[in-house]
Amino acid sequence: MEIGELKISKAEHRSRVERIQKQLRRKRLGALYLTSSTRILYTTGFSHISTERPLAAVIPDEGLPFFMAPCLEYDHIRQECPLAGDVLTYPDYPGKIHPMRVFAKFMGEKGLASSSIATDSLEGAAGGYGYRGPALRDLMRRAKFVGGRDIVDNMRLIKSRQEVRLLLESAKWSELAHDILLENTRAGLHDTMVAVRSSYDALGRMLRKLGQSYVQMKIALSPVVVGFRGQVGANSAIPHAVYTKNKIRRGDVLVTEAGVEVGGYTSELERTLIVGKPSSRAKRCFGAMLNAQNAALKEFRPGIRCGRIDEAAAKSVEESGLKEGLRHHAGHGIGLDGHEPPWLDPGDRTVIREGMVFSCEPGLYFPGYAGFRHSDTVVITRKGMDFITHYPREIEELTI
Amino acid sequence: MEIGELKISKAEHRSRVERIQKQLRRKRLGALYLTSSTRILYTTGFSHISTERPLAAVIPDEGLPFFMAPCLEYDHIRQECPLAGDVLTYPDYPGKIHPMRVFAKFMGEKGLASSSIATDSLEGAAGGYGYRGPALRDLMRRAKFVGGRDIVDNMRLIKSRQEVRLLLESAKWSELAHDILLENTRAGLHDTMVAVRSSYDALGRMLRKLGQSYVQMKIALSPVVVGFRGQVGANSAIPHAVYTKNKIRRGDVLVTEAGVEVGGYTSELERTLIVGKPSSRAKRCFGAMLNAQNAALKEFRPGIRCGRIDEAAAKSVEESGLKEGLRHHAGHGIGLDGHEPPWLDPGDRTVIREGMVFSCEPGLYFPGYAGFRHSDTVVITRKGMDFITHYPREIEELTI
Repeated sequence: MEIGELKISKAEHRSRVERIQKQLRRKRLGALYLTSSTRILYTTGFSHISTERPLAAVIPDEGLPFFMAPCLEYDHIRQECPLAGDVLTYPDYPGKIHPMRVFAKFMGEKGLASSSIATDSLEGAAGGYGYRGPALRDLMRRAKFVGGRDIVDNMRLIKSRQEVRLLLESAKWSELAHDILLENTRAGLHDTMVAVRSSYDALGRMLRKLGQSYVQMKIALSPVVVGFRGQVGANSAIPHAVYTKNKIRRGDVLVTEAGVEVGGYTSELERTLIVGKPSSRAKRCFGAMLNAQNAALKEFRPGIRCGRIDEAAAKSVEESGLKEGLRHHAGHGIGLDGHEPPWLDPGDRTVIREGMVFSCEPGLYFPGYAGFRHSDTVVITRKGMDFITHYPREIEELTI
Repeated sequence: MEIGELKISKAEHRSRVERIQKQLRRKRLGALYLTSSTRILYTTGFSHISTERPLAAVIPDEGLPFFMAPCLEYDHIRQECPLAGDVLTYPDYPGKIHPMRVFAKFMGEKGLASSSIATDSLEGAAGGYGYRGPALRDLMRRAKFVGGRDIVDNMRLIKSRQEVRLLLESAKWSELAHDILLENTRAGLHDTMVAVRSSYDALGRMLRKLGQSYVQMKIALSPVVVGFRGQVGANSAIPHAVYTKNKIRRGDVLVTEAGVEVGGYTSELERTLIVGKPSSRAKRCFGAMLNAQNAALKEFRPGIRCGRIDEAAAKSVEESGLKEGLRHHAGHGIGLDGHEPPWLDPGDRTVIREGMVFSCEPGLYFPGYAGFRHSDTVVITRKGMDFITHYPREIEELTI
């Protein structure tokens, strides 16, 4: 970790690039061509806003990565990415000459016109915001393109010590943010107001403590997000609710979320809250959800398949007699992206290994009534797992 | 517009679906298969969080659209999308049977196994968060797939009266939010704190006034975002800065952004601010930027090509003798997405038409010193343009 900065060190990024280059040489590939902003961030440490303007980071089989980018990212890459070699630019999109044609020319100038190239996009561009253009592979007929997503994504499966440290730092501030949310939440308030107010309060506490060692890597109004994301009252029964327009009421069940981005990494902490004295139905559903989470948490260890965690949670729910409340599997990998492989799903046969990080979040949802879900982030250890998020999980502690 | 709700009416969504169905029948296509969350929202009014879990809205050549979705979105679609016919689900991703195989089976059950199908994704899935799977077209060998993005995207080029009304409502609250930002901004403060505080204050004002007629359609901590997104001091010279870790200082040039999501639509309002008495260099750069924006604004009218707007801005900058500060073209279409075609770019030969909505934002950037950019949102009228965003643009009004 660089002294004073909460982000992945330059040395670790250099070693990631070298590991990729070793794979390229072993597979006799000339380069890895990346378009996804997450893969570019993971590999080079450069964070950017992905738009309609194509941007690619290319890792040749030896030497420094080079970038192909719109002119408006030139100074940004130069300033923020010490690992970048050349930064080759086009004026803007769509341009008098399409950026993809410019990229094809640049690839030729870099000696890659007839190479075997691994890529995460045969189009050559991330393709957001109504982007249109010819596919890079059609403009480089002498080159051979092969799927290259796994080269980076397989590395991302096992988190390094630096990555786990950032996730722990994220969790620490998420826990504080959640405390503040609990203090601010009460019947009669608009959930979004409580969320933004609590995020603001927690952000202030974090910035006063961390000062300039804190570096926000991703675009967001606030790197601290704590709130409800629509899961308020009957709407808590919608696992991926987007919003609510009701105020918080006595008797409501709420599902919270607390996440703080630290060096690009955000741990996941979610809790089910009860506003006022819990009904017997609320107690029963909450208890079934908590039992399922406990059953899943107990199961984590290296050597078993991902599906086993979900099986344990589902079996527990079945024993509670509430299996009609199941809507999704027990969790997912987490790191630079909020959801990452592998998946705690019956269909995922990936074997769990030390250093993997997961959300653990079996949920129960009853349309018209309420939803119940806790989410914790855990890291797989040599013999089992450790919590990354540390926060009360019992109903007594989550009744306000 | 539905009474009391700031969103596109059900009648307008129904008419969009009917327009699509007319096109399908004319082109002898059996259905339009959509995976992009923006296109699904535009067409059906259903807003969802796009993840690794495939979700598709399918518009057959007649009758109601149907959805294919993960189980966790079933209740959500039923509750939020009055236009939805069947909602066909799979348990979760990746599943014991991959969702794309389930989708292929559903398409068969809907009588589309041997149809000509327009689609915005030959893969059959939006493909976020490390999604992997077989391409739908490979699982439906008897069907014929053709590119279908233009069917929706061409409709989106011209905004309806309801869309313009939502953008105007967005602008109204963005202007208030920007006023609050100006009041809260001063030397010595952390830019992110000022941003979150101001967003909170503006959100409170908006919700008190609009009450339950306000409906947030997109996932975000706050539907009101006002701040600097990293463009503070020397960092204002980075057009797509992500963050800054410096506090605001006397003499800084800041580039702001203010956006409020209303019914899925967010207008774009950005201003260059000077903290303290502007230097002569700041005055010169600000003046050149403002002249360029004025030159571009004067040019908007139906019948000319998009590139003309950018030409006018670039010519003005050249006359100011500061063309080394140019980093990007003069603006972009805007609507449900923050950037949309067409582009105010020399390479875009699209003819401007009444009802198109653009950002107008020529910028000047001087590495190590500062950046200068205003952005306004405008709608094309019969003879010229109207402002959607109304906010002072002169340096005297933007010095704090």
